[in-house]
Amino acid sequence: MNQPIKDAKTLEGAAATFARYRRDDSPKPTQWNDTLELLLAHRSHRAFLPQKLPEGALETIVAAAQSASTSSNLQVWSVVAVTDQERKNRLAELAGGQQHVRDCAVFLVWLSDLHRLEQLAKAGGREAAALPYLELFMTGVVDAALAAQNAVVALESLGLGSVYIGAMRNKPEEVAKELALPHNVFAVFGMAVGYPDPAVETGVKPRLGQAAVLHHEQYSFGEAQLDAVNTLDAKFRDFQKEQNLPEQGWIRQVLSRVRGPDAMSGRHRLKEILESMGIGLK
Amino acid sequence: MNQPIKDAKTLEGAAATFARYRRDDSPKPTQWNDTLELLLAHRSHRAFLPQKLPEGALETIVAAAQSASTSSNLQVWSVVAVTDQERKNRLAELAGGQQHVRDCAVFLVWLSDLHRLEQLAKAGGREAAALPYLELFMTGVVDAALAAQNAVVALESLGLGSVYIGAMRNKPEEVAKELALPHNVFAVFGMAVGYPDPAVETGVKPRLGQAAVLHHEQYSFGEAQLDAVNTLDAKFRDFQKEQNLPEQGWIRQVLSRVRGPDAMSGRHRLKEILESMGIGLK
Repeated sequence: MNQPIKDAKTLEGAAATFARYRRDDSPKPTQWNDTLELLLAHRSHRAFLPQKLPEGALETIVAAAQSASTSSNLQVWSVVAVTDQERKNRLAELAGGQQHVRDCAVFLVWLSDLHRLEQLAKAGGREAAALPYLELFMTGVVDAALAAQNAVVALESLGLGSVYIGAMRNKPEEVAKELALPHNVFAVFGMAVGYPDPAVETGVKPRLGQAAVLHHEQYSFGEAQLDAVNTLDAKFRDFQKEQNLPEQGWIRQVLSRVRGPDAMSGRHRLKEILESMGIGLK
Repeated sequence: MNQPIKDAKTLEGAAATFARYRRDDSPKPTQWNDTLELLLAHRSHRAFLPQKLPEGALETIVAAAQSASTSSNLQVWSVVAVTDQERKNRLAELAGGQQHVRDCAVFLVWLSDLHRLEQLAKAGGREAAALPYLELFMTGVVDAALAAQNAVVALESLGLGSVYIGAMRNKPEEVAKELALPHNVFAVFGMAVGYPDPAVETGVKPRLGQAAVLHHEQYSFGEAQLDAVNTLDAKFRDFQKEQNLPEQGWIRQVLSRVRGPDAMSGRHRLKEILESMGIGLK
């Protein structure tokens, strides 16, 4: 990565990667463009203006989502767009009382959807015996995630902001009832979308140095990876300070999230609940 | 979606959505930009020029991938970049003999990676008892998928092309050995990346009309959704004809993929194999 910086565009690239990693050895891109600028500048937004989405914006965002790859073109995902205030309020409660789910212009719930294929098989008198396997469970989850991430890129290109809401998995049965989800459909995550409130400052969250994440030829976990972790721990402490958050560093924060079932907001029961809903995991 | 088309940019938008859906009632975007153009134009590439990636491109792509959201900032994913021809050949074989895995400039294997947190907990004498739950399995899969999709957008903005390789799940143990994956790491999917061969024409693959995928307030499956399915079936037949593929339509093709364990290329054993590798699914 010792390429000379050639022009203003690549200077922008170097600034964007430095903002993401806060490391002197951050990658210095030799090519740069507006789409990369948008991707690198991503941050989650949790404070929204009361403004609605312009007409047609949701459909444009969904067209972008549908343009993502889908395993074998199965298209085993769907999305529910919720704008009704009462329904947003109820979903906010199911997500543990998240105010931004109430305040967003539209709350999108991204679904793994094997129902469509199940119904088509039934209508055609065909077997669909692969649906209850873990493989198809994963396919639905991956399809929904690829679509959702394209939606994030699209909505940010339109000046909107968003935040993923994993807490849709806290109470999957209640979410399914609220959204009238049929057999073989479940909420993978939610996403609050709206115009970010410019009065609430947000920062680019620092990430692990590439040494920890990008492996060459084979996986490795040694000194370079531990350096990336320890550097992030310090940089994340700086970030928390800037954002007026408790300064606990990255390691302590993430380990507290995975310490055990009591830290999982009910999601230690996810398998049991999905199975009770008829979601196959065999 | 009866907004007037205002200018050349939105005309481009209407053309892009029509190419994606091939329906007269395709969304007619009222806002449009180069990033949306890029997202809508996505197609998978399976024929690559022998050219390598320019220096720094991989690091730029990974910086974009790391800029995607990650659940609670856990960053439970990694990626292995394979350029060694022998290793690409072996991975191509494990994927059922896919030539584009051999031919691509770099083969990326996207990993769910709970190993990092497991090691940090061990080093700090902390519990990480949440790791073996289905919730964390899903978190790793979603984190890897969000990162990978940002990578696709980034690499396409640089003029590169790619195709996801779900067949990394055909033989997860062998893939893990080839890439020296430690405990609690598995390949979610691969991705062949390179400069597309312009001599091999690819088309924008048609998708289900939005009525099937975008639900308002609650999920529905009725006439509008069935119309979307049947229209796609016909449009997909046209697409197959254009691409000199067998004209079987969408419904028949997808149902043949999910008919049962015999159509799953070994992935009906995924759960059993992941568990034997020590991946928690409780």
